[in-house]
Amino acid sequence: MTDNLDEKKTLAAEWFAALRDRICAEFERLETELADDMPHADLAPGKFERTTWERPDESGGGGGGTMAVMRGGRVFEKVGVNISKVGGTFSEQFRKEIPGAEESGGAFWASGVSLVAHMRSPKVPAIHMNTRMIVTSKSWFGGGTDLNPMVEVPQDTADFHAALKRTCDAHACADYPRYKEWCDEYFFIKHRNQARGVGGIFFDYLDSGDWDVDFAFVRGVGECFLDIYPALVRRHLGETWTAEDREWQLRKRGLYAEFNLVYDRGTRFGLMTGGNPEAVLMSLPPEAKWP
Amino acid sequence: MTDNLDEKKTLAAEWFAALRDRICAEFERLETELADDMPHADLAPGKFERTTWERPDESGGGGGGTMAVMRGGRVFEKVGVNISKVGGTFSEQFRKEIPGAEESGGAFWASGVSLVAHMRSPKVPAIHMNTRMIVTSKSWFGGGTDLNPMVEVPQDTADFHAALKRTCDAHACADYPRYKEWCDEYFFIKHRNQARGVGGIFFDYLDSGDWDVDFAFVRGVGECFLDIYPALVRRHLGETWTAEDREWQLRKRGLYAEFNLVYDRGTRFGLMTGGNPEAVLMSLPPEAKWP
Repeated sequence: MTDNLDEKKTLAAEWFAALRDRICAEFERLETELADDMPHADLAPGKFERTTWERPDESGGGGGGTMAVMRGGRVFEKVGVNISKVGGTFSEQFRKEIPGAEESGGAFWASGVSLVAHMRSPKVPAIHMNTRMIVTSKSWFGGGTDLNPMVEVPQDTADFHAALKRTCDAHACADYPRYKEWCDEYFFIKHRNQARGVGGIFFDYLDSGDWDVDFAFVRGVGECFLDIYPALVRRHLGETWTAEDREWQLRKRGLYAEFNLVYDRGTRFGLMTGGNPEAVLMSLPPEAKWP
Repeated sequence: MTDNLDEKKTLAAEWFAALRDRICAEFERLETELADDMPHADLAPGKFERTTWERPDESGGGGGGTMAVMRGGRVFEKVGVNISKVGGTFSEQFRKEIPGAEESGGAFWASGVSLVAHMRSPKVPAIHMNTRMIVTSKSWFGGGTDLNPMVEVPQDTADFHAALKRTCDAHACADYPRYKEWCDEYFFIKHRNQARGVGGIFFDYLDSGDWDVDFAFVRGVGECFLDIYPALVRRHLGETWTAEDREWQLRKRGLYAEFNLVYDRGTRFGLMTGGNPEAVLMSLPPEAKWP
């Protein structure tokens, strides 16, 4: 049992970085294994580029992160996989909104991995995945993943949800029905009165009392993602698509940008607290339309 | 001197509608007068289409508006000119933020005209213009206009600011230096640490004590817009542009969308209070990129 907080922080941050490495490797494999007769086989396989950033913090904290971005690939039009490890002191105003932050005098530590993939083909679903560990005077995990097809494919939706259910069911701390509902509530574009995608899971403030159990679940979410998403991508890679499919994709991406800029807590938190805008806004689509 | 509130409301709403008609006519004139040897002369001249919407209000208010939109023109890639006239009761929470709204028991009335133009050519500046009258237990005007070139043309900036200065100087209630500074402050994309455009004027809570004087200034802003913006458009209509210019235009539009979705008070107010999303988000660019 892990009972040292510094050890927990180290284990979590190392896991997020290791997961990032495995995701990047798997996504580059998708780029290279594309068959010659499939759409976009004429393009060169995309590769990730990494840039690190540091977070100046006048309160004595700091930290930073690494952006891994692939642009203009054959499969991935733009995908960012960011990891970060930051610490510092929340403003008087902001600490009221964060559990345990008033008791910590505003002090916080956070580490996580965050991924958004916008796909070249309108037939391949876009996706978001994020897991994080936050420490104030309390300590918890949060995260989730949601699938964003341009046009829903019921079998994909079913397989995605089934994989997440299996992962939750395998960990005593996780509550699949609640996390699924939380996801539907969270990724809802209220002003459009429509869901952003076809759902998945969303969880926050996860602290069952047994950090090792919670951390095992968070690792399980990462493993689940690595298992199911590349399978869904491979399922649709060979499909052809039309200019109309692309047009619809660009409109759906407009809605995605609306959600992230208007509602997404992570995005707004990042922008409002002086996070690295390039990293925070890596989630925005490479191209979008509001015709 | 106009001292009847209903008469003031009627005069203001009628002016906003009349200004809309003149702007639409002038913009359609720009579409038809494009010379045969200019870029996009092969396209058909764009025309405005109007749609009306009503605002259901459980508190007994209501009203609605009209969207006039031109899409896919030779000069205007997408331009919306919206007018609205709405009334109702603000929520307990929201009325705290609006002058005179607690004293009115939340009751409000508002009318205005709002315009955003995204241009086909990257050489022609985009623009925003809005004026409005709000009534709670108080009554005031607000509005402004700001120029958004893809690459700044110093003579355009100078002429635009000079026209606005002349308008402000001609009206005793208006304070040009303050309105110019307010504009620079308002249209600043904080997370990018950069201005949205090259400025203009922004004013709010304008109530000098003489409604007729204030209303004359608001009409002056409309006249100024009709005078200076079409002149700036004509100045650049014949210029050719490259694929690189277009790429830059699409990136600048991405920043424009960021500002409107993250910061713009009108946009966020409209989305959060159940306004017509199509009308509220008419300001979003027809196409944008975050590469």
